[in-house]
Amino acid sequence: MKMLYSKTFAMLICLFCLIYTGFVYHESSDKPIPYPEGYRYWTHVKTAIIGPENHSAVRFQGIHHIYANDKAMKGYATGKFPDGSIIVFDLLETSVETTSDILEGDRKFIDVMIKDSHRYDSTGGWGFEEFNGNSLTERNILHLSKSKCFNCHAKKSSSDFVFSSFRK
Amino acid sequence: MKMLYSKTFAMLICLFCLIYTGFVYHESSDKPIPYPEGYRYWTHVKTAIIGPENHSAVRFQGIHHIYANDKAMKGYATGKFPDGSIIVFDLLETSVETTSDILEGDRKFIDVMIKDSHRYDSTGGWGFEEFNGNSLTERNILHLSKSKCFNCHAKKSSSDFVFSSFRK
Repeated sequence: MKMLYSKTFAMLICLFCLIYTGFVYHESSDKPIPYPEGYRYWTHVKTAIIGPENHSAVRFQGIHHIYANDKAMKGYATGKFPDGSIIVFDLLETSVETTSDILEGDRKFIDVMIKDSHRYDSTGGWGFEEFNGNSLTERNILHLSKSKCFNCHAKKSSSDFVFSSFRK
Repeated sequence: MKMLYSKTFAMLICLFCLIYTGFVYHESSDKPIPYPEGYRYWTHVKTAIIGPENHSAVRFQGIHHIYANDKAMKGYATGKFPDGSIIVFDLLETSVETTSDILEGDRKFIDVMIKDSHRYDSTGGWGFEEFNGNSLTERNILHLSKSKCFNCHAKKSSSDFVFSSFRK
């Protein structure tokens, strides 16, 4: 009978540990990536238009601008992005006013990369999120950053997993 | 004889005044507009692509970005641009990589507007200049800002002679 109590007690300890570990894991890696407030006033890195024939058109067709905070600008200069770097890929519809001009239309979404080498060590030190339209809270990526973002960014290990470079 | 001396003296005074006035005028209105150092780190206002069918394509065809310094950002917010506001229209060639994507190519020129309501009172308080390609010194406008820039900007008196507005 005494042994049964001991076993039960040990199992409870184990259960507690598992729950606690899970909780800590959740806290450290699944804390939502914050909306990048004020990114429209950050440095404009570059722009491109992805057309209907691009292989990634389903997701990325439109005109996109890339913005970087000051820490990320150090990354573009040195090739190594310090913790706290944030890069925003701001995708807008294209609005064709005449047959040859292209204007900026409504926002489709913004993609955000934030560098925290400890928290996101399984995805190159980068956390990824997507905010739908103009929403500050509607997240499209959440737990799927590896399959939806990092598997492609992984190709760019030579530039710290960043595709863009600063246009001067 | 004495009268002749007096007349010559008076004429010399007049000549001196004319030269001096001309010099001051030259100093106040014709001082070259400085190259807007660091504008690539200013706020990105908006972007558009002007195609071959646009009526201003001869001069402006390509992809352009508009950048504004902090004072000019106050102007976009209030509709009245304070002295010291600088706006840069950065025009690049478009470089078509596939049949549907459009990338940024070489710089064609930058157009600069700088607000000084006293110095440039004959052109809405704005001085205009254009720097060719990536040059910091090769100016295309100089004394022709009225005919080459202001005559068109004059249409926009309701927005302090500025065409663009800040895209959020």
